[in-house]
Amino acid sequence: MLLTTLNSIGHTNGALAAIPSVPVKKSPHGMVSRNYQKEDTVIRFGNTQIGGGSFSVIAGPCSIESVEQLLETAHAVKSSGATILRGGAFKPRTSPYSFQGLGEYGLQLLSLARESTGLPVVTEVMDAVDIPLVEQYADILQVGARNSQNFSLLKKIGLSRKPVILKRGLMTTVEEFLNSAEYILASGNTDVILCERGIRTFETSTRNTLDLSAVCVLKERTHLPIIVDPSHAVGLRRFVKPLTRAAMAVGADGVMVEVHCSPETALCDGDQSLTPEDFSHLMKDLGIMSAFMSKLS
Amino acid sequence: MLLTTLNSIGHTNGALAAIPSVPVKKSPHGMVSRNYQKEDTVIRFGNTQIGGGSFSVIAGPCSIESVEQLLETAHAVKSSGATILRGGAFKPRTSPYSFQGLGEYGLQLLSLARESTGLPVVTEVMDAVDIPLVEQYADILQVGARNSQNFSLLKKIGLSRKPVILKRGLMTTVEEFLNSAEYILASGNTDVILCERGIRTFETSTRNTLDLSAVCVLKERTHLPIIVDPSHAVGLRRFVKPLTRAAMAVGADGVMVEVHCSPETALCDGDQSLTPEDFSHLMKDLGIMSAFMSKLS
Amino acid sequence: MLLTTLNSIGHTNGALAAIPSVPVKKSPHGMVSRNYQKEDTVIRFGNTQIGGGSFSVIAGPCSIESVEQLLETAHAVKSSGATILRGGAFKPRTSPYSFQGLGEYGLQLLSLARESTGLPVVTEVMDAVDIPLVEQYADILQVGARNSQNFSLLKKIGLSRKPVILKRGLMTTVEEFLNSAEYILASGNTDVILCERGIRTFETSTRNTLDLSAVCVLKERTHLPIIVDPSHAVGLRRFVKPLTRAAMAVGADGVMVEVHCSPETALCDGDQSLTPEDFSHLMKDLGIMSAFMSKLS
Amino acid sequence: MLLTTLNSIGHTNGALAAIPSVPVKKSPHGMVSRNYQKEDTVIRFGNTQIGGGSFSVIAGPCSIESVEQLLETAHAVKSSGATILRGGAFKPRTSPYSFQGLGEYGLQLLSLARESTGLPVVTEVMDAVDIPLVEQYADILQVGARNSQNFSLLKKIGLSRKPVILKRGLMTTVEEFLNSAEYILASGNTDVILCERGIRTFETSTRNTLDLSAVCVLKERTHLPIIVDPSHAVGLRRFVKPLTRAAMAVGADGVMVEVHCSPETALCDGDQSLTPEDFSHLMKDLGIMSAFMSKLS
Repeated sequence: MLLTTLNSIGHTNGALAAIPSVPVKKSPHGMVSRNYQKEDTVIRFGNTQIGGGSFSVIAGPCSIESVEQLLETAHAVKSSGATILRGGAFKPRTSPYSFQGLGEYGLQLLSLARESTGLPVVTEVMDAVDIPLVEQYADILQVGARNSQNFSLLKKIGLSRKPVILKRGLMTTVEEFLNSAEYILASGNTDVILCERGIRTFETSTRNTLDLSAVCVLKERTHLPIIVDPSHAVGLRRFVKPLTRAAMAVGADGVMVEVHCSPETALCDGDQSLTPEDFSHLMKDLGIMSAFMSKLS
Repeated sequence: MLLTTLNSIGHTNGALAAIPSVPVKKSPHGMVSRNYQKEDTVIRFGNTQIGGGSFSVIAGPCSIESVEQLLETAHAVKSSGATILRGGAFKPRTSPYSFQGLGEYGLQLLSLARESTGLPVVTEVMDAVDIPLVEQYADILQVGARNSQNFSLLKKIGLSRKPVILKRGLMTTVEEFLNSAEYILASGNTDVILCERGIRTFETSTRNTLDLSAVCVLKERTHLPIIVDPSHAVGLRRFVKPLTRAAMAVGADGVMVEVHCSPETALCDGDQSLTPEDFSHLMKDLGIMSAFMSKLS
Repeated sequence: MLLTTLNSIGHTNGALAAIPSVPVKKSPHGMVSRNYQKEDTVIRFGNTQIGGGSFSVIAGPCSIESVEQLLETAHAVKSSGATILRGGAFKPRTSPYSFQGLGEYGLQLLSLARESTGLPVVTEVMDAVDIPLVEQYADILQVGARNSQNFSLLKKIGLSRKPVILKRGLMTTVEEFLNSAEYILASGNTDVILCERGIRTFETSTRNTLDLSAVCVLKERTHLPIIVDPSHAVGLRRFVKPLTRAAMAVGADGVMVEVHCSPETALCDGDQSLTPEDFSHLMKDLGIMSAFMSKLS
Repeated sequence: MLLTTLNSIGHTNGALAAIPSVPVKKSPHGMVSRNYQKEDTVIRFGNTQIGGGSFSVIAGPCSIESVEQLLETAHAVKSSGATILRGGAFKPRTSPYSFQGLGEYGLQLLSLARESTGLPVVTEVMDAVDIPLVEQYADILQVGARNSQNFSLLKKIGLSRKPVILKRGLMTTVEEFLNSAEYILASGNTDVILCERGIRTFETSTRNTLDLSAVCVLKERTHLPIIVDPSHAVGLRRFVKPLTRAAMAVGADGVMVEVHCSPETALCDGDQSLTPEDFSHLMKDLGIMSAFMSKLS
């Protein structure tokens, strides 16, 4: 009787909606788990890869600002040895009145930089409706820290065939972070790269607190590659180099660092962006370290 | 020359995309600020209101599970004096394998409960594509804690004409919380109700840490109404009553509490749901308290 | 053989030291537990008490600065209804170059204020060597937040016969807080009053985050009285009144608030000190509220 | 007149106490600051040093349990290359019913181990009254995390002529940490070694969150040496090695790690103690790494 009422009242059109289905769990520990897959996931695209013993360096500006800014930075990071170019076209900003990114025009510039340098590119998707658009231009999709538990976005990005960099939220535990990745895998996309980028704590001398222990914990619990973003974590250019070295020493699969050809004029996060020269020094250090890392037990 | 290249290469169709515009700031402190609007915002709908000296009690189940569960709970909270019914149809769950809500069918049940009780209803929107659908059924839209900095969703919900309850994120400072509200106001929707629901801290004896000081700070900085959700903050039924009394004592404009006709069988958050009897006792206390709150200086 | 060597070498005088004994646990849950003692502990001294259904108001300056400042403030808080006077003679300051309190001279002033007003007095002990001295002047000893896990001090204060106010540390969990109290009880002093004074979180709009949920949790787990210090928690005078009302509403046994006859000239924490006039208003509110609180379920 | 009253009443003996003096600040930024002293402080004792380009490894058991346990562990860490032996005789434990350390007997054993191995030794002082005793046995005094803002202890340890390892509190900001060190320097002891040992955050997959960024910040702000304690920070043996490597890579002056000859029988913190074999592997890695650290820019 109640259901009869339900069918005839209000805004419903007489037909009951279907109940959305929940994915069937393929493993008691989740598909992200080492128990589900023992060997490390290696994600290949273009001429490069993430995971599998390599140390990937993703570099580029926080936000794409102009064709000159992007190309100059892109060529600089390439010549120093970066293997993937980053650049934001859709920017999640705390205030609605801050620069929000160039949108599709930024994606077009990113595509140009990819053609010009040969580097694969990664850029953030803030809204599921933009996925088809971003897929046209980018080799890797990124989910930002503030969307780390935006489950609608995670489900839809799980339908994409592009690899995904999933950033840890500022207050996401390691366990929740893995569950967020599981949303993507459960939707069908297994090419997920986890990115530790600092958590929020009481400490204010750095922008956030880089949690390198989480890399150890994640390496044990999941087969997915784990990279580190020291730029957003620490928020200060001069500390990016030592923290990148620490990320390599702790066993991360790579880093994502912000580089800007002219940090003092950057529209976003200039304080934490390396200059091309800083980046060149960083890459030399990583080259020396990686030669020795293979000798460690 | 570079721009010529840009127009002709890659995936672009020869036309440059437009750069998205950023809203013009109408006040140096933002439209949410007391400096922009001195008097309290009062949000009216149906026969009730939020803000303006009243103390609103929004009650109902965490998630809508069945027509019987929802109607029994709805009538119970109405008879005890609740003025707005809450119930989730789209549920943000940490794991993709947990019950995700009944979706549109849940909205249909919510509509039925609204017709049956006469109470206005509030429900969460997790995905901007669902806004038109949810608007058909709900009187108030809710943005959940995990989407508190999902700026794409905030912009689009700002285009709706329905009032919005915006929950504070687990990691969101008061200043960031106000900026998130500003996104909605800057998009054109000024009917925003802020909801403090506990922040994440080191303490584990409660689910989160209810930050009642934030109510004081928000009351000073903004003209928007502020309600408190003690159920999600503390996560334990037996502490909801004292914390609701504290929310009234500190000066909040209302509370949102979870009530379930049978908490032990709830599909979601049963531990923190009041029984209808608990809720009835709580409402009696609030009645006594509100009589003397008006006498305080 | 090794032990022979031990006895004959180095700085030892040939005699082996005794191994310190550890107290025997009198209850599997600890003596602080409701399982060990069901009924509330009521602590009586002078003409007043803490716990047992009363709501105690402890008021006075953060630090004792002069005879005039202390006496003027003491008489003001007494005339508004405070039942206990607080005032710091030994001040734990972040910097060694900040005013550290008047020491014994401050205690002498405190004693004078007690004689002059008839109010019992509480003051902080920072160092176990000062216990005999402070016991001469004070009715209640206080252990500050930064010494909340100074176990040596807790053991020695447990040997005192004076009641103790134990403040929660800025990063002490409820469970650890109870263990700290247990140190005092295990040493023989059962007159312990717990004081929630705000915990350290990521939020910066208030000095700390007052955790009123902890009062609920503590009330359940322990028979000891629990008071709240809103002044240190929030750090801003204008928010002390609403938070004190909330502390009463949530079920605390009292509050400790800072009052200064001239906050703008205070040597310590002036921003958070009430004026005598503010305090008088607060006490009127508490009088109205307490009349109604007894009618609540 | 008031002062006359003061002299004649109550418990005072007729004489007014002296007001304690506050140290005069020798530098506007404090003596710990790089602005006060540009060159790194190097602390020398016995045949070794901390700071000045070396990487010190302090190793040994969390608590001293028996002569056999200590000597076996001490010889093992020495043979792998540790330069300083650690071992606790006074243990700060959350519960009063946990093993509190062997006290002076533990110090006697430590002294024996020092004679037997030739390694200098460090041990914690929990109570200022124990300073003269501990000074008889130890080469370095340690102040534990829970006493990081026990200002009375810091002042008194500042009167000692022994070097001091000061641990960062679980709730201590970098700025407060430097102020705590300033207490020791202001009392006359300039041989302070700072130790980052993890801060308390919301994350629960590790015991605390190791804050390696703080090493960068501290290196910039102070001339004092900074070491890292990964054992207490992470709480899990298998993560100590990667985090120690990260500590070296980020530029720390050394580490303090827990080693136990039989972790599964340890009375305290067995889960985080390395076996002598683990430690030997760690030292080999550090040897390889230190060879190339000098080549980095």
